[in-house]
Amino acid sequence: MQKTWSGSRVDLHIDLDASKGRRSALESALRDGIRQGRLAAGTLLPSTRGLATELGLSCGTVTAAYDQLVEEGYLTTRPGSGTTVADIPPETVTSPSAVPIPAGPHHDLRPGIPDVSAFPARAWLAATRRVVAGSRSVVFGAGDPQGRIELRAAVADYLGRTRGVTTTPDRIVITSGYYQGLSLLSGVLAQNGAQRVAVEDPSHNVFRAVVQRAGLATPPMPVDARGACVDALTREVDAVLLTPSHQYPTGVPLHPSRRQAVGAWMRTTGGLVIEDDYDGEYRYDRQPVGAFQGVAPDRTIYCGTASKTLGPALRLAWMALPPHLVKPVVEAKQQADLYTESLSQLVLADLITTHAYDRHVRATRLHYRRRRELLLGRVSGITGLTAHGVPAGLHALLTLPTDWPPEDEILSLCARQGLALRGLSELHIDPRGRPEGLLIGFAAPPEHAYRAALDALFETLLQLATNTK
Amino acid sequence: MQKTWSGSRVDLHIDLDASKGRRSALESALRDGIRQGRLAAGTLLPSTRGLATELGLSCGTVTAAYDQLVEEGYLTTRPGSGTTVADIPPETVTSPSAVPIPAGPHHDLRPGIPDVSAFPARAWLAATRRVVAGSRSVVFGAGDPQGRIELRAAVADYLGRTRGVTTTPDRIVITSGYYQGLSLLSGVLAQNGAQRVAVEDPSHNVFRAVVQRAGLATPPMPVDARGACVDALTREVDAVLLTPSHQYPTGVPLHPSRRQAVGAWMRTTGGLVIEDDYDGEYRYDRQPVGAFQGVAPDRTIYCGTASKTLGPALRLAWMALPPHLVKPVVEAKQQADLYTESLSQLVLADLITTHAYDRHVRATRLHYRRRRELLLGRVSGITGLTAHGVPAGLHALLTLPTDWPPEDEILSLCARQGLALRGLSELHIDPRGRPEGLLIGFAAPPEHAYRAALDALFETLLQLATNTK
Repeated sequence: MQKTWSGSRVDLHIDLDASKGRRSALESALRDGIRQGRLAAGTLLPSTRGLATELGLSCGTVTAAYDQLVEEGYLTTRPGSGTTVADIPPETVTSPSAVPIPAGPHHDLRPGIPDVSAFPARAWLAATRRVVAGSRSVVFGAGDPQGRIELRAAVADYLGRTRGVTTTPDRIVITSGYYQGLSLLSGVLAQNGAQRVAVEDPSHNVFRAVVQRAGLATPPMPVDARGACVDALTREVDAVLLTPSHQYPTGVPLHPSRRQAVGAWMRTTGGLVIEDDYDGEYRYDRQPVGAFQGVAPDRTIYCGTASKTLGPALRLAWMALPPHLVKPVVEAKQQADLYTESLSQLVLADLITTHAYDRHVRATRLHYRRRRELLLGRVSGITGLTAHGVPAGLHALLTLPTDWPPEDEILSLCARQGLALRGLSELHIDPRGRPEGLLIGFAAPPEHAYRAALDALFETLLQLATNTK
Repeated sequence: MQKTWSGSRVDLHIDLDASKGRRSALESALRDGIRQGRLAAGTLLPSTRGLATELGLSCGTVTAAYDQLVEEGYLTTRPGSGTTVADIPPETVTSPSAVPIPAGPHHDLRPGIPDVSAFPARAWLAATRRVVAGSRSVVFGAGDPQGRIELRAAVADYLGRTRGVTTTPDRIVITSGYYQGLSLLSGVLAQNGAQRVAVEDPSHNVFRAVVQRAGLATPPMPVDARGACVDALTREVDAVLLTPSHQYPTGVPLHPSRRQAVGAWMRTTGGLVIEDDYDGEYRYDRQPVGAFQGVAPDRTIYCGTASKTLGPALRLAWMALPPHLVKPVVEAKQQADLYTESLSQLVLADLITTHAYDRHVRATRLHYRRRRELLLGRVSGITGLTAHGVPAGLHALLTLPTDWPPEDEILSLCARQGLALRGLSELHIDPRGRPEGLLIGFAAPPEHAYRAALDALFETLLQLATNTK
């Protein structure tokens, strides 16, 4: 009896109606709980002795109430396994297990999503074990609004080493994803009197919306073969949101002459650069493109993330900030949600300092490079189809032969084949008269599913090529 | 050579200056990286062959550059362990290891903090293993702004079973802590036209500030022996923030007559109740106080958290919402940070469904009950010192003998003894003329440190009692 109690007992909330007799009150409390779905089918009830002690009733009263409800069909009892809630249809409440978990697309070629099936689960678990074995008050007690110092130190070191970023742990702020970081930063800039943050056109519509929600205007800079046309940066612009290593979505790196022009604009106007280095880890050619931040660490907000290297669901990102922005951004973070959860920060810090993170990035880089080659091989088989932005990153931009149907028709056709990808048009601020194209994320599917996804995509595209001949 | 490369290689960012010779460019790139602190002392460099391949240089060039820097003292080399960065003082950057990790107070008796040394680390690790062994695309792919369905289902079941909450998984929203949940909810209420959210006085100053930041006024309700004086709820009040099970900080449960009055106010005015059930799991008497939400599920926002049961650093909380608030709150969550990270949500869902969470709550409840007894024993030894609010929760409110010095003096005295606790005054909206007191969190210290903390506290208090005689 005692064993059943401590081994499988669950917490029960039972309100006894004082106007009824004790047995009757317990019966109707249990009955209501089961009818309303609060006591789910299969729930193991406390032992009669346990519940009697808990509620200050006699064992006999509880046994009688259980027996009554077994007779009424609310409870079931089997020798040796205690009394459980029977499977009756609840009155008003759908059972948790009835809630369907939505399925993803059949072939996932959406840009910006890494192959999470390659997540370094073994290394993550080993690091979690190490972290949890450390001081629990450090791991599970109150966290730091700026982010755990262990992760800030690891990230500062990592960014210096791999991306040429000049920073220190006290200039790093950890946020629950880049999205939150950009949102907090935009709020701080608006509070400091900024009015305009220039954005690339095309660029990620979701992030433009984040900046706009802070009340900031987003004057556009067209993108050409040298990246963003930065001559749009005037005195009236307070900051510019750039993807200099690998422009999103075109994949062009910002040309050295443009980098210099941005530097000159910063010096003459005091303007700020927000550098979204969303996939800087993934370059496939021999000419690495360092972060822009190194040029002007005191006026650049460098933003990086684990979403592309490990997975978006971790919600871990970092900003390397100019000194004057650290305090206001940390305050904004604190006002939003106090601080980002500590455990995964400490685990990531462990992975970085033990170099397991580097090894993972390197392994997935090789893995994505092979996928890129496969994609390019297929693209070259269709006249007029051209891949852009492929020296780096997790996606390619395909521009289409001029005689093909419009982008939205192609996307519908793909969707009917179970293919999830993205069109270029929705990333233009005003898509009228702008080039169309397809964004193919070659990182999203698990390794075993990639070829089938390519087959499905190119079967559809080859059909278009044949139809338009 | 190959082994060293793949086993311990780190990612290096090296910018070669095209205006110099190749060897000289590599040397100065490495030199700059080390001087500026981007390459930290002890960093293992790639093998010469590896770096040569990476940069498209000859092995001889890289070997010559490494040799040169070893001579200059920037690098060190030991047979069999490769080339590492030497320990030279960086120019501008403090080394990560130089950043001190701040120490906590010597005796932590702050209210609202659980004993995180009791964190069920073994169960958490086992659940993490189970979760990570499942579908990685589910665990690490994009999450759900409303919260993982697995956790929402588990929480809906748990709240029904243990707290008498009537809800369904589709009415649950997971947030990164109660603080974020209250902040998002306040924003939604303000957007929907609410102007006034009544608050208890005294109550948690941090949460009052969260409501006010959304632009809402917070008319106060004094707290007496029956809990909040709800006659302050008028037609002009849109919602009320209540801690009905265990008023914070006085510990009084809301009296049945007051509960009825709140229900009547809701019916006649359409007002909403925000129920902060911050420590509802911890009740030590036989008369459980069910959640208020069960009375009016369609007008109550029930808020619960894992911060008091497992630890604040997890940042996991839940709201059971009236149907009409689900969509706007989920949208607000998405606009804040897309969604809360998935892994710990899935681990907590596993702990709840396997009843490991119940067992942990039950174990810590016994553990805290013993601590409460110890505290009450000490309190009874000092005439005029009275403990309030102790049938439940993680803290006691001590009111002081009338002839003692003022609260702030006592707090300073305690701080000098390394004791961290909280005064009642800062929780009053206007402390002038209001009772003073000490809030003693008896859950915060690890088990082995609790008696020493009590000793330190009561040594100080006994001294006061003696001095004032």
